[in-house]
Amino acid sequence: MKEHNYPVNSVVVYHSGYGHTKRMAEAVAEGARATLISIDQDGEINKQDWEALNNADAIIFGSPTYMGGPSWQFKKFADSSSKAWFENRWQNKIFGGFTTSASINGDKLNTLNYFVLLGAQHGGIWVSMDIKPANLKTSDRNDPNWLGSYIAPMGQTPADAPVEEMLIGDLETASRYAARVVSVARQLRQSNSI
Amino acid sequence: MKEHNYPVNSVVVYHSGYGHTKRMAEAVAEGARATLISIDQDGEINKQDWEALNNADAIIFGSPTYMGGPSWQFKKFADSSSKAWFENRWQNKIFGGFTTSASINGDKLNTLNYFVLLGAQHGGIWVSMDIKPANLKTSDRNDPNWLGSYIAPMGQTPADAPVEEMLIGDLETASRYAARVVSVARQLRQSNSI
Amino acid sequence: MKEHNYPVNSVVVYHSGYGHTKRMAEAVAEGARATLISIDQDGEINKQDWEALNNADAIIFGSPTYMGGPSWQFKKFADSSSKAWFENRWQNKIFGGFTTSASINGDKLNTLNYFVLLGAQHGGIWVSMDIKPANLKTSDRNDPNWLGSYIAPMGQTPADAPVEEMLIGDLETASRYAARVVSVARQLRQSNSI
Amino acid sequence: MKEHNYPVNSVVVYHSGYGHTKRMAEAVAEGARATLISIDQDGEINKQDWEALNNADAIIFGSPTYMGGPSWQFKKFADSSSKAWFENRWQNKIFGGFTTSASINGDKLNTLNYFVLLGAQHGGIWVSMDIKPANLKTSDRNDPNWLGSYIAPMGQTPADAPVEEMLIGDLETASRYAARVVSVARQLRQSNSI
Repeated sequence: MKEHNYPVNSVVVYHSGYGHTKRMAEAVAEGARATLISIDQDGEINKQDWEALNNADAIIFGSPTYMGGPSWQFKKFADSSSKAWFENRWQNKIFGGFTTSASINGDKLNTLNYFVLLGAQHGGIWVSMDIKPANLKTSDRNDPNWLGSYIAPMGQTPADAPVEEMLIGDLETASRYAARVVSVARQLRQSNSI
Repeated sequence: MKEHNYPVNSVVVYHSGYGHTKRMAEAVAEGARATLISIDQDGEINKQDWEALNNADAIIFGSPTYMGGPSWQFKKFADSSSKAWFENRWQNKIFGGFTTSASINGDKLNTLNYFVLLGAQHGGIWVSMDIKPANLKTSDRNDPNWLGSYIAPMGQTPADAPVEEMLIGDLETASRYAARVVSVARQLRQSNSI
Repeated sequence: MKEHNYPVNSVVVYHSGYGHTKRMAEAVAEGARATLISIDQDGEINKQDWEALNNADAIIFGSPTYMGGPSWQFKKFADSSSKAWFENRWQNKIFGGFTTSASINGDKLNTLNYFVLLGAQHGGIWVSMDIKPANLKTSDRNDPNWLGSYIAPMGQTPADAPVEEMLIGDLETASRYAARVVSVARQLRQSNSI
Repeated sequence: MKEHNYPVNSVVVYHSGYGHTKRMAEAVAEGARATLISIDQDGEINKQDWEALNNADAIIFGSPTYMGGPSWQFKKFADSSSKAWFENRWQNKIFGGFTTSASINGDKLNTLNYFVLLGAQHGGIWVSMDIKPANLKTSDRNDPNWLGSYIAPMGQTPADAPVEEMLIGDLETASRYAARVVSVARQLRQSNSI
């Protein structure tokens, strides 16, 4: 894709239970030059946060995968977005996402599938990854997309590893993806502004 | 399948936002002769409820489909079940489920898929439906499994219809399914008791 | 969205077993002003078809839902697209889809989810629907999106109904969706051409 | 679960493209003491194979994950099972499955989800795994369920690794799971025979 400079509003909205998703969200926000919105431990965000989401060109969802799906706090946010849904406030927005968990697979695909559905319910456009899986014998755990996801990036940190020990490859993959999401949003926005 | 009389403990655990899922849960509980556990509006159940779930032979999950998935209150319950998960308390249990929403399709399959995943995370056994879809030109809205689901029963009530106007066919389908779930649980239980 | 006139290449690639998906594909192609590519009963398309797909700005997938997923002929096409996958030929393309079956639900969501995954594996961008479900008591079977899908349109025709009796509402919904998919493709294309 | 000796018929039906799924199928068949049915490169099995499936107490599905789902040959088999579906030949059977691919995640969950749907369409009972993911810092690639799947076992072999280099841990996980599937089938069968 071409480079574009048209300004876009990007928002990363995430819930983090123990800090891993927060760190991944920060990598994503850096890649996307996005505003970070943290869903709190009661599943809430404030009025300005909703306003920022309504005004965004691109929204990136983030959540750990707990018990095979997004955390309940993220789902509470998703359920609350029914207000924006009724008013078609998020229609035609660009959507992306990311998730992380302790197990290698851990049913993380189900969380990403849910993000796709949520974006679709809002009438959005989903941007997938463009980084092929690193799946050769010589592939390194920190290679881009070592986990081999397509819909959106995944992160994985052992159950007994603290935030500091998150894999740099997972974070860089997420950051690259975020830049891509925003690039697509920029193109659509620019085209609409002509 | 043969008739079996071996006693089994069945539990229906559900969240209902506006009463539709509650009514469906009651039909399910009747079919399964099951204990009903209602997840409250904060996503909580009490200590005795957890005990009942731990002691159950069969657990049937129920939730409306909101924004493409189970309600956050149900997901909070699911996340809280990680305690039972750590202790393998629900392993080898029989699982089933049901969901309802206002739209005909409404991504209800995603909620049922999640129930399957949740049961699988707990090391359980999932019982699907055995009622073929009623999909002929002469099929009636109240025919068994008119909605055409397979993993578990679905209900559908228009967005402006109160609980009283729920379709009797959906409720009967759910009730028949529940009896089937318990029948499988009874067989496994009986076999283990020999 | 604004009206745009920038020329785009759109392709609808579909498999039809008994003619229902073919008719739906024709409605989609009309909405998208797209080239129609029919996957034959052996799951094959010809060399020019692959060339057309490689050159397309937008690709719309179509298949009946058989036994809970796309037909094997569609899957054979999908497996053959691994050649384009290796060469990144479909990266950044706009993707959409549609499916039809005899049962009301019939696990059609799983077919649409697969189309999303297939587009994502190719590094594409998925366009969802922007038509709210018609889910009121007064809703008519021929209202736009009566079936209540979000990721992409669904069609449903009773098992004993011939192609001529397909619901006009399903076809119009699919056609409107197709126009939307192409509109997004047009915007991205135009932006890239500046 | 208790040990049971009641005789059961188990069948593993799989398609293998390059031999990896075949080797995994052999490990599964050993664990399940099952008959092996290989779907050929045209997606066909013979008449005796269909008879064996119709007579089975437990059926375990196996396929590589290609382009985000089961191979087209497996899907052709699934589509052909619509004959058994019409006649309710597979109702109440015990179902399980397994899949393998080159990428770590590689959307393998989608293939397993499809197996669940296929079993559900047939009115079956699905047996999930009971092996917790090995997800600690000290976990070894060959630990049971290192890949962290729940619905059924996954295998993963780098794209440039031959069949001989498949991970023994993946194979043992699949074998243990298969024994579990058959154990559940045995219990149900025994109970029905009383």
